[in-house]
Amino acid sequence: MTSAYTALEKRFRRLSLLGEAVGMLQWDMSVMMPPASAGARSEQIAALKLLSHELMTDPVVSEHLDQAEETNGLNDWQIANLRRMRRRWLHTVAVPPDLIEATTHAATASETVWRTARPENDFPAILPHLQKLLSLVREVAVAKSEAFGLPVYEAMMDLYEPDATTAMVDDLFDDYTKFLPGFLEKVLHRQKTHPDPKLPKGPFPVHQQEKLCRRLAETVGFDFKCGRLDTTFHPFSGGVPEDSRITTRYDEDDFTSAIMGVMHETGHAMYERGRPKAWRYQPVGETPGLGMHESQSLIVEMQASRSRPFVTWAAPVMRSAFSGEGEAWSAENLYRWTTRVTRGLIRVEADEVTYPAHVILRYRLERAMIKGDLAPADLPGAWNEGMRALLNVVPPDNQNGCLQDIHWYDGAWGYFPTYTLGAMAAAQLFASAKEADP
Amino acid sequence: MTSAYTALEKRFRRLSLLGEAVGMLQWDMSVMMPPASAGARSEQIAALKLLSHELMTDPVVSEHLDQAEETNGLNDWQIANLRRMRRRWLHTVAVPPDLIEATTHAATASETVWRTARPENDFPAILPHLQKLLSLVREVAVAKSEAFGLPVYEAMMDLYEPDATTAMVDDLFDDYTKFLPGFLEKVLHRQKTHPDPKLPKGPFPVHQQEKLCRRLAETVGFDFKCGRLDTTFHPFSGGVPEDSRITTRYDEDDFTSAIMGVMHETGHAMYERGRPKAWRYQPVGETPGLGMHESQSLIVEMQASRSRPFVTWAAPVMRSAFSGEGEAWSAENLYRWTTRVTRGLIRVEADEVTYPAHVILRYRLERAMIKGDLAPADLPGAWNEGMRALLNVVPPDNQNGCLQDIHWYDGAWGYFPTYTLGAMAAAQLFASAKEADP
Repeated sequence: MTSAYTALEKRFRRLSLLGEAVGMLQWDMSVMMPPASAGARSEQIAALKLLSHELMTDPVVSEHLDQAEETNGLNDWQIANLRRMRRRWLHTVAVPPDLIEATTHAATASETVWRTARPENDFPAILPHLQKLLSLVREVAVAKSEAFGLPVYEAMMDLYEPDATTAMVDDLFDDYTKFLPGFLEKVLHRQKTHPDPKLPKGPFPVHQQEKLCRRLAETVGFDFKCGRLDTTFHPFSGGVPEDSRITTRYDEDDFTSAIMGVMHETGHAMYERGRPKAWRYQPVGETPGLGMHESQSLIVEMQASRSRPFVTWAAPVMRSAFSGEGEAWSAENLYRWTTRVTRGLIRVEADEVTYPAHVILRYRLERAMIKGDLAPADLPGAWNEGMRALLNVVPPDNQNGCLQDIHWYDGAWGYFPTYTLGAMAAAQLFASAKEADP
Repeated sequence: MTSAYTALEKRFRRLSLLGEAVGMLQWDMSVMMPPASAGARSEQIAALKLLSHELMTDPVVSEHLDQAEETNGLNDWQIANLRRMRRRWLHTVAVPPDLIEATTHAATASETVWRTARPENDFPAILPHLQKLLSLVREVAVAKSEAFGLPVYEAMMDLYEPDATTAMVDDLFDDYTKFLPGFLEKVLHRQKTHPDPKLPKGPFPVHQQEKLCRRLAETVGFDFKCGRLDTTFHPFSGGVPEDSRITTRYDEDDFTSAIMGVMHETGHAMYERGRPKAWRYQPVGETPGLGMHESQSLIVEMQASRSRPFVTWAAPVMRSAFSGEGEAWSAENLYRWTTRVTRGLIRVEADEVTYPAHVILRYRLERAMIKGDLAPADLPGAWNEGMRALLNVVPPDNQNGCLQDIHWYDGAWGYFPTYTLGAMAAAQLFASAKEADP
């Protein structure tokens, strides 16, 4: 008797399609929609999300989950799918609707203020919003913690990285913290034995960059017959497996930033495209966590596209794309440029070696804030102290410090660890692949 | 006690937002989506449409409609809104779900065959599909006819032009049929007293055409701060009042076709944008019928943009857009070119004088087919005979005859009259406006 389970599959299929429709409306909002039309679009998205919420919180779902879990005769795939359904359901019902609404409003207000506070380096302006949002986010986490029977921070991480524990993350991050200083010294020392790499001199016209990005994305496997590349200020990967929508932005002085962005989003898109077709529209067919998703973008961007064989192949392609001349276009120089390591201040510009330090800092600070051990007012000081300890650099201001990332100001707490979990998985997968097929 | 009515407003607001989301997915499908991704998109659209259908056919809607209609104390606006709700609901529940599904499938199959049958001039290939679709469309119309208490053809028209009667349409069309031959002779005779107008010689590069189209659309009132102009093979106007999405196509040999297309869609978009904000998301705030909608596109395209004052202003703008030289760019020549009248074969290329004849032909033929007085197999002969009688021209083949329009092959029966109802309303509104403010 699997009818409860079958009803659940049907409902989750519908929820998945509703989610895809919302995703498409959001893609359009970021890529195509005139900004002045945002109000009307929000109404559409809110209506679809409310429908989803009602479909998920319908009392029959709870009954079906209970019945299905007591059913004998489900196969392993169905059991795994059912487990994911239960978890999704729990994430939705664990939090009272008015708390969700209050958090959403606080996040929107906070994000709006952050968008001007960051360029204006104005931490005091965002502080009250951060305090309010943190307290709501903590309430949400406490509610989920009770529903899941998990520690508060793990209940937050669970939304992004199911089953991740702080014990596991601490192990990895503490290990890296010990490893980094000596290794970084060694890397920087060795870098000095070579001439400094040079970025070829621009300007690099956008249409030439775009053509090159398309060629490179296609080379590693992006299929433009069922995908698009567009331009946005914040690059992302959206769409569905059959219709990949990736974006990038172009810097006329540095073509490598658009290329690496496109390679990153191409990795995300190819992973989505590779999801099993027979598992489509069911929770178990989706990514097990953002760390795994990120590993697939980083395996393309950080492992493959910065490998010596790739850069050796790509250097003349890049040179001819811009009719470049001179030593800066040599494979050797471009390889050194794209793999150079620096003690930087900004996470999104960080190299493979120092990136985890940026993440570890955020992970420790957000845990402390959630626990109440660190007050938001003390964040700038703690940030700068952490940067000094981890990378031996101190930001000159908060714009280059604790104001740089949107996550905390947008309500995405517990998200940061997935970046480094993904980077580690990517490095391990790539190393294994090379070992298996040198 | 207005709670039943209030519940209906809430539900129809939600239905309206779901419809907007579907519209956006369709816009993207026509304008942005790679064609290979159509399968995934259809699933998304089908899921949203099924949700809409369930929201409308929920038994509580019927109860609320009954209760609201017995409520005293509704104001005129609410009563009008309620009337529209009842009609929408009737259109949905009048037809059994399996008949809707069969009709949708037959229409999709027929349209697919039509897409190759038209260019290949292959009426026999489409005939069985037309027969099948006609019989299903008639079944739908009979079901609606019973639900509405209307004659069968009026029940079909009601979807596009509520409250239109065949008596009213016959009056107008018979009158025009009598008026046309003499008037057309007079117009053609008078045209001959002037030199033939000439289209300036191209090619006209697409990017220059697009820039010009944007300028002209803005001049008559299109607001690009909350709207877009894109390129599609079949031009249309989509989006929502706060986010107009119009499209056109460009002919490198004839820039006037893109311009007039853009002016037409601009009229549609401005009408939508002008809908009362306080009536947003409610049925009574939407257009009362497609004839009225079309009148607003035609008042811009046919009345304003082809007026002598407009062309006099626009001629030098057009000339400078393409750095044109010579007499063909004079306002006098361009005015004669854009207002020239011909006995043509193709509806979408027809001028203001002969356009109604194309519509009258289709109206009479589709009524005869619905009634059973004309068999689809006899359509080509009846078409050619009708063209001879109305415009004194006979198509050399079915591609230029009964295969030219998508409507019948796509299931849109009862739609054609709205074009001419709109054209007549546009002419009357423009004449009144000129009279009121010469």
